[in-house]
Parts: sequence; structure tokens; C-alpha cells
Amino acid sequence: MATSLSFLSTTASTASFCRPVNPHHPSTQRTFVVNSLSKVLTQDDLKKIAASKAVEYVKSGMVLGLGTGSTAAFVVAEIGELYSSGKLTDIVGVPTSKRTYEQALSLGIPLSTLDDHPRIDLAIDGADEVDPNLDLVKGRGGALLREKMVEAVSEKFVVVADDTKLVSGLGGSGLAMPVEVVQFCWKHNLVRLQDMFKEEGCDAKLRLGDDGKPYVTDNSNYIVDLYFKTPIKDAPASGIEISALEGVVEHGLFLDMATAVIIAGKEGVDVKTK
Amino acid sequence: MATSLSFLSTTASTASFCRPVNPHHPSTQRTFVVNSLSKVLTQDDLKKIAASKAVEYVKSGMVLGLGTGSTAAFVVAEIGELYSSGKLTDIVGVPTSKRTYEQALSLGIPLSTLDDHPRIDLAIDGADEVDPNLDLVKGRGGALLREKMVEAVSEKFVVVADDTKLVSGLGGSGLAMPVEVVQFCWKHNLVRLQDMFKEEGCDAKLRLGDDGKPYVTDNSNYIVDLYFKTPIKDAPASGIEISALEGVVEHGLFLDMATAVIIAGKEGVDVKTK
Repeated sequence: MATSLSFLSTTASTASFCRPVNPHHPSTQRTFVVNSLSKVLTQDDLKKIAASKAVEYVKSGMVLGLGTGSTAAFVVAEIGELYSSGKLTDIVGVPTSKRTYEQALSLGIPLSTLDDHPRIDLAIDGADEVDPNLDLVKGRGGALLREKMVEAVSEKFVVVADDTKLVSGLGGSGLAMPVEVVQFCWKHNLVRLQDMFKEEGCDAKLRLGDDGKPYVTDNSNYIVDLYFKTPIKDAPASGIEISALEGVVEHGLFLDMATAVIIAGKEGVDVKTK
Repeated sequence: MATSLSFLSTTASTASFCRPVNPHHPSTQRTFVVNSLSKVLTQDDLKKIAASKAVEYVKSGMVLGLGTGSTAAFVVAEIGELYSSGKLTDIVGVPTSKRTYEQALSLGIPLSTLDDHPRIDLAIDGADEVDPNLDLVKGRGGALLREKMVEAVSEKFVVVADDTKLVSGLGGSGLAMPVEVVQFCWKHNLVRLQDMFKEEGCDAKLRLGDDGKPYVTDNSNYIVDLYFKTPIKDAPASGIEISALEGVVEHGLFLDMATAVIIAGKEGVDVKTK
């Protein structure tokens, strides 16, 4: 089971919101944050707070897996600042998408790939859903395959998210659980995926881009998004069953991978570890 | 366990080689074929004999999975002839590669895809290895993903091969067992695949095209070919383990899929069924 540790962020960017009224009385401290933060913090502020906390795990000399998405972008930005200021040295970043590659490159972070660095010390990434066992749904940003490749070989995998991502069971948000499929006969796989989750109730849709055409991943594949009426009953079994479908390249269930999850909410920051 | 039924082909193209001396004495019949065929038949002749036998399974009205490779090309050619002569009517072909699509199109065979015909009555295809349980290695022709997608949904899957393809255990030919991987960080997956088969002894190589550049599949992926020193010890477990690797799209182990295997050898034609 996951254990939970509540605390307040102490980084410079968030200290003004988090300074306790009475440092010897944690519960007062917590209440103070609730009252203050709920009035002034946006979702982006919460993501930044979680990102700052995650960056505390980064040490000089590390090979770092760099995630993709709005929260991960805050992480990469902060790592870039620390590197350019000389506070972090001798790091190597392994990006999980073309977008992240471009962001990290523009910040001057030294970059590599899994081919040259097949072992990662620490990966930090966002998540779309986090369940009580720290199992995740990821990939709404479209980078699930490269994210999973990098995070699967990371000694530590720290997830950053705001508290809207917490679910009691995966698929429970009612939002998309993505499956990357080859373009060839994608409809056939869409139907098979939908049929696989009859018990949960599932609506499968091909992801479209802003231009109304099918969204194409960095690996030239399509994405079928699965929308569940009730949470997935047996996520490990479902993961194996989805992977075994011919033409499925990867799915968004990230099971037994996260070593810590940092959740920023209006009540403060929670770190859950396994 | 597979059961074996030896017989001689009775199609017009091979009748001259296969007419028995004494139809009431099968062993004489068999010996006659050995003596005659061994002198005159090439590998291509054997493939044609097996192809003709497989085409006997084709009936009017069927949705047909059309395989890829040198033996499958003989099958498609014969189906094309039967269709254009009117002996076969109301068939629909679902090709397993761009090459087969083009061949079938040129022969005037009506074509479709899994999207419109997700259930196939009969698929016929070649194989690179056939073991005693009718499990197969396929994909040296590079079309393993589309072949597996089509053949996995076929009510009957008839394999045609010459007897050089028989092995005691999969991987036992010492020739390639292909794994289709995404281009992203292919080296990383090549190393992981090679490490997975330490017990068997395995040499993993990126497949190159005639131009010396990486061979690219119909789905824009690469192929890593695995060469084993001894047969794969537990093919079902290995199949699951390979599929679970992030970035692996498909592998060439076709397990528990073939319903019949037609083997042409210089001693005649064998049909093995499950």
C-alpha cells in the first residue's frame, strides 16, 4: 500500500503561500494554507508547486527522464534554470517527446537517448489519473509510448499532478485512456478494444487533431481513446490483454511504475510513496 | 497434439508427378513419388504443389486472408486464376501486405480490409518455421504484423510450406525470428531482446534493406531479427514477454493459430491438422 506524507512546499516560488502561522503546530499550518490557497491559486500554480517539489529529487550527475505535458513542462523549465545557473551540473536529459526535446534543447540541457543511456536515474512526468496504489493513466498528451519506454527503465519515477487527477480506480475520471495503434485497420482495433471492456461500459473513439484529421503520434501511429463508465476492474489483466492485440503499440496504463507521486491541492502538497 | 495425414496432390498441375502406380497400395504410391520427385522438383515446384493443395480449401462466397511471401504468392495467383475463370465466385480477399495487395489487385480479386471484414473465413499463408505443434515463426518477409492481424481473426488458417521449414522447436532453424519495433530507440530494444534470450544464446540484428539502410515495414517500423543458437525454451512465455516490451509492435511467433499445415516435400504432400 502507498503511504502518504503531507507537507508544504518550501521552494522560493511558493514560500509566500506556504509559510506557516505556527511552525510548531502542523494542523494550524495546514488550515492556513487551505484558507489562503483556495482564494489565489490557479491550476497552473498548483502544477508549478508540484513541479518544484519534484525537482528537489534532481541531483547533479543524474541521467534524467524528461516527461511531456503541461506539468512536466514546468519541471523541465525549472531544471533548465538550475542547470544554466550552475546549481545543477553534469546532468543528461532523455526527453519523452519531440515537444520536450525542443523545450529542453532551447534551455541548453544536455540531451541523449535510451540508445546511449539505457538506464535512467530519475524520471519526472505528469499523469492523467492516479489511483490509491500509485498506478496511473497517462498519454492524453499523446506521448505515452516514449514516456513508458523511458519511465520503465528509470530507477526512480516521480509523478507530479494536481489533485484533480486522483481517482479511486483507473478509468474512473471518465476521461480518455489512450491506446496507440498502428494506422493499418485502426477501426478493427477500435472495435476490439471497445468490446474488451463491455463489463465496464466503454466508448472508444479515434483521437482527432485540431484540423479534424486523425491525430498522428511521434511514431506515426493513431490513438484510440477509451472512455469508461465505471473504473477498470482488473487493470493488470487488461494491460496484458490490450498489449496482446495485434496492431496495438502501447496503452496508457502505467502500472507498478511510479515510486513517488507529488499531488498539489489547495490544501497543500502531498507526497505519496510506495 | 497434431495429427498427420499423408497424401498426394491431385491438382492438374502436379498430377503427372503424383499418379500412383497402384492406388490400392499407399506405400507403393509413396515410394513412387519419392523416386520421381527427388529428381525433377525444385523448391518452387514444391511450393506450388503445397499452394495448390491449400487452394482446395477455398470455396465461393468466402472472405479470404491473403498471405505474403513466395509460397503465398503462388496461392494468390491460383485463386486469381480460379476467380477469373469463374470457378470461384463471390470471394473477397484481405491482403496482408502492400505487395500482396498489388498482386491480388492485378489479378482482379475483389479486395477489402479488416475494418470492413473483421472476420475472415480462411487465411492461407506461408511460414518460416513449423514445429510439431503447428506453432510457427513467420515474418522473414517483413509483413508479420499485418499477417498476424488478419490470421488472428481467421476461422481457419492454413499454412503452406516446403519441408525445409520443419523444426523440432521454434528458433531451431538458426534463421531470423523477426520482431517489429518502433524506430525510436531501436538499439535499446535490440539489446533488451538479445538479453531476454541469454539461455538460448541469441544474436540480435537490425534488418537492413538492399540499400544498406534499415528496412522499414509497411507500418513505418524497423525489424530486429533474432538468431538463436538453440530453440526457444518456452515460446508462449517468450511471446508475452516480448509483447510487453515498450516499443515492440509485434513478434514473429505465431502460436496456437494454424488449423492446418500443408508441407510439400520430395516424398509427397503432408497435411497436419490440430
